[in-house]
Amino acid sequence: MSDVPHMSAAEFRRQGHAVIDWIADYHERLESFPVLSQVGPGDVRAALPADPPEVGEPFADVLADIETRILPGVTHWQHPSFFAYFPANVSGPSILGDLLAAGLGVQGMLWATSPAATELETHVLDWLATLLDLPDRFRSDGAGGGVIQHSASDAALVALLAALHRVTDGRSEHEGVAGGRFAVYTSEQTHSSVAKACRIAGLGSDSLRLVDTDPRTLRARPDRLRALIDADRTAGVVPVLVVASIGTTGVGAVDPVAELAAIAHEAGAWLHVDAAWAGVAAVVPELHWLNDGLDAADSYATNPHKWLLTNFDCDAFWVADRTALVGALSILPEYLRNAATDSGAVVDYRDWQVPLGRRFRALKLWAVIRCYGGEGLRAHVRKHVALAAEFATWVRTDDRFELVAPPSLSLVTFRLRAGDDATRALMDAVNGSGEMYLTHTVVDGTTALRLAIGSPWTEQRHVRAAWELLRARA
Amino acid sequence: MSDVPHMSAAEFRRQGHAVIDWIADYHERLESFPVLSQVGPGDVRAALPADPPEVGEPFADVLADIETRILPGVTHWQHPSFFAYFPANVSGPSILGDLLAAGLGVQGMLWATSPAATELETHVLDWLATLLDLPDRFRSDGAGGGVIQHSASDAALVALLAALHRVTDGRSEHEGVAGGRFAVYTSEQTHSSVAKACRIAGLGSDSLRLVDTDPRTLRARPDRLRALIDADRTAGVVPVLVVASIGTTGVGAVDPVAELAAIAHEAGAWLHVDAAWAGVAAVVPELHWLNDGLDAADSYATNPHKWLLTNFDCDAFWVADRTALVGALSILPEYLRNAATDSGAVVDYRDWQVPLGRRFRALKLWAVIRCYGGEGLRAHVRKHVALAAEFATWVRTDDRFELVAPPSLSLVTFRLRAGDDATRALMDAVNGSGEMYLTHTVVDGTTALRLAIGSPWTEQRHVRAAWELLRARA
Repeated sequence: MSDVPHMSAAEFRRQGHAVIDWIADYHERLESFPVLSQVGPGDVRAALPADPPEVGEPFADVLADIETRILPGVTHWQHPSFFAYFPANVSGPSILGDLLAAGLGVQGMLWATSPAATELETHVLDWLATLLDLPDRFRSDGAGGGVIQHSASDAALVALLAALHRVTDGRSEHEGVAGGRFAVYTSEQTHSSVAKACRIAGLGSDSLRLVDTDPRTLRARPDRLRALIDADRTAGVVPVLVVASIGTTGVGAVDPVAELAAIAHEAGAWLHVDAAWAGVAAVVPELHWLNDGLDAADSYATNPHKWLLTNFDCDAFWVADRTALVGALSILPEYLRNAATDSGAVVDYRDWQVPLGRRFRALKLWAVIRCYGGEGLRAHVRKHVALAAEFATWVRTDDRFELVAPPSLSLVTFRLRAGDDATRALMDAVNGSGEMYLTHTVVDGTTALRLAIGSPWTEQRHVRAAWELLRARA
Repeated sequence: MSDVPHMSAAEFRRQGHAVIDWIADYHERLESFPVLSQVGPGDVRAALPADPPEVGEPFADVLADIETRILPGVTHWQHPSFFAYFPANVSGPSILGDLLAAGLGVQGMLWATSPAATELETHVLDWLATLLDLPDRFRSDGAGGGVIQHSASDAALVALLAALHRVTDGRSEHEGVAGGRFAVYTSEQTHSSVAKACRIAGLGSDSLRLVDTDPRTLRARPDRLRALIDADRTAGVVPVLVVASIGTTGVGAVDPVAELAAIAHEAGAWLHVDAAWAGVAAVVPELHWLNDGLDAADSYATNPHKWLLTNFDCDAFWVADRTALVGALSILPEYLRNAATDSGAVVDYRDWQVPLGRRFRALKLWAVIRCYGGEGLRAHVRKHVALAAEFATWVRTDDRFELVAPPSLSLVTFRLRAGDDATRALMDAVNGSGEMYLTHTVVDGTTALRLAIGSPWTEQRHVRAAWELLRARA
């Protein structure tokens, strides 16, 4: 039997140090790259060998290829002038916490398969609930608790499954969901993940009711929700889930959660709050109003992997009553039975999510919270909010531009008064320059640009330069 | 505005090198730990401060706590004497490839958001298809293609959604799935992920038909599948999906894929093959028989994160016809529109999966394939298969023990002739010793122990020691 060419410990140290140094260098030279990759379809593949190697190569060759073959095809999400979509922060503590998870290589599917993976996750989500001043109902010492999901899409999906479990008294898992019998409600501004969840969960997109928003604030209108629910109930359709948004994708609108929750609960529906991007901002006391109404929510999701310095994937998801969630998702085959699970004294997180397997994701969030502290996380959020406010004041001073909505936290939505074509041409021009990257949305039928500040490397000068470039190309 | 206490580049280098060294040390001293964590429920949390820190701490303190507060609660999946469940390998190249993904921090949800993340993934899955000798239908240059999913559970779920899309001509996404109208078929030995997928997708567990297996081989019986499908069709129930297993969780049984596929297709159903653990073994020519029948499969999943040296998460999933998958999962809101997507010339992997966001997971698989080469991967698999075969010969020599099934690849299933209680007591005794860890299953009503070999650090002496311990405690 031939020996397996595993990397030796000495070589792992050598190459590992080289990768760490490469990352540190990469972060120091972020500004030397065009933000948006300039390659065309197929360019990256054309630079790769058609066939896998028969004989192993040194890792140093892989690292060299990152530089020459991969980086040209990378859009630099950490670039200080990346203002597209929502941010996806990384940070030193997070990268190293994640590296520890890779090195340990444990599976946290059950408490028994690595108790620390489960208990640190429960603990850190309680910590985060404290930092964000979330209602006690989401803490693990009562009926609720937190868990790390892959993404806010997964959170919306499992919230829907828990809601179906509750509204059908557990029959949905066995009997399935009859299309046309159930309805889900969310604002027309809500992220597409809710529509996707309806499709995945078998309700179909026809079951999704889009609630009109106030044309000025783009917040969901409670009266419209009530009208939709009333119509459904009259028709014999069961309201299952209402999804409220705190910080919509388009313009960062914040729905009136308390009012929506009251209407949802009166109809027997579950109230899930998607605060994927904005929720973490509640780490700052002056933004605690973001949590208004959460004490009536059944579940809540926000993504440290967006704006809280923790690399993907890390969606923090809390439920007020974990029994519905576990009821919807628990299946216990013989090969997963164990004494700890049978005792009922432990949490098995596989029953809180779609997949079975789980990475030790709590390590990176733990590292971030410990290394920044509450103080550091607040400074981080405040800095971006202040930069966005400053950018908005500049937009107001130029007659060619207008704000589409008031700035929301670190997001500014604006457009050219000259109209859609001019606004889109401006976006293409600045993105094509490689000097910055921002994306668009459509509000009330017209195109708007979104400047979302989020990179830890973004300073005032980058926001200033973005504004100067926008003005110059307008 | 106070400055944000980001880790400096110099500090990142220093702490990063320390983490790399810690991981190298950890892997070198794996044998000094009890394989199975010996803590009780709540022990890990009790060692953690109740509240998050207000002021940031040095990362070195986090690393120190890994040693003292986390490791006691870790079950060491990389330990050479870890024989439980199925393996979850890591390797130097994989850890470093994953680290690069964390450092780059890009989102690969769309081709446009980082072309290299998409194109490297497509390319590396073609490479893996070559290495495993998969049918051409799964390659990206035709109608099919590969994608990395979070887990085999996610793969089974999206296969079911694609199957529903196809069988309903795309109506399922809109109208939902009526419980009782559709049926899914898989063997009673198949992993619980299929039952979970039926629940998540809204079909309900009542829609799942368990196909009897041959009592000797534990392979699904085609005649039983045909009978179940005929009964359903007579009753007006639509067969949607048949899941065949290559390497079941219990004993590693391999279903007759070609026969099941023919029956499935005759009934208009989709044939998905779950080869989560075993599939990667086809990297070895003498095990190409594992792929028998795959040229008739509609989709196929195997996990490099189990037995191919790539750390979690990395499920390789291929479809023969990507239009059904994309049809089932694609939703295009305005804020995700872009020229590349509109052109149709690129793949947007968000439409191949449940979540929207995606980590640059191809990097770790690329690093593994390049650093091991086909040669190295073959040596890795062959070594474990040979060790399992040797263990099985030892079991045969001791009258107190018996094999429950012939060894399957690197998995040996066996028991004490003295019966269930003795077998379970033996498992508890050896696991409680901390010297090894294995888990059980139930075959034909009786308890069996599973010895699954998979750690890169496992040598013959570890398997020998496991056998000696089992004999001593029997």
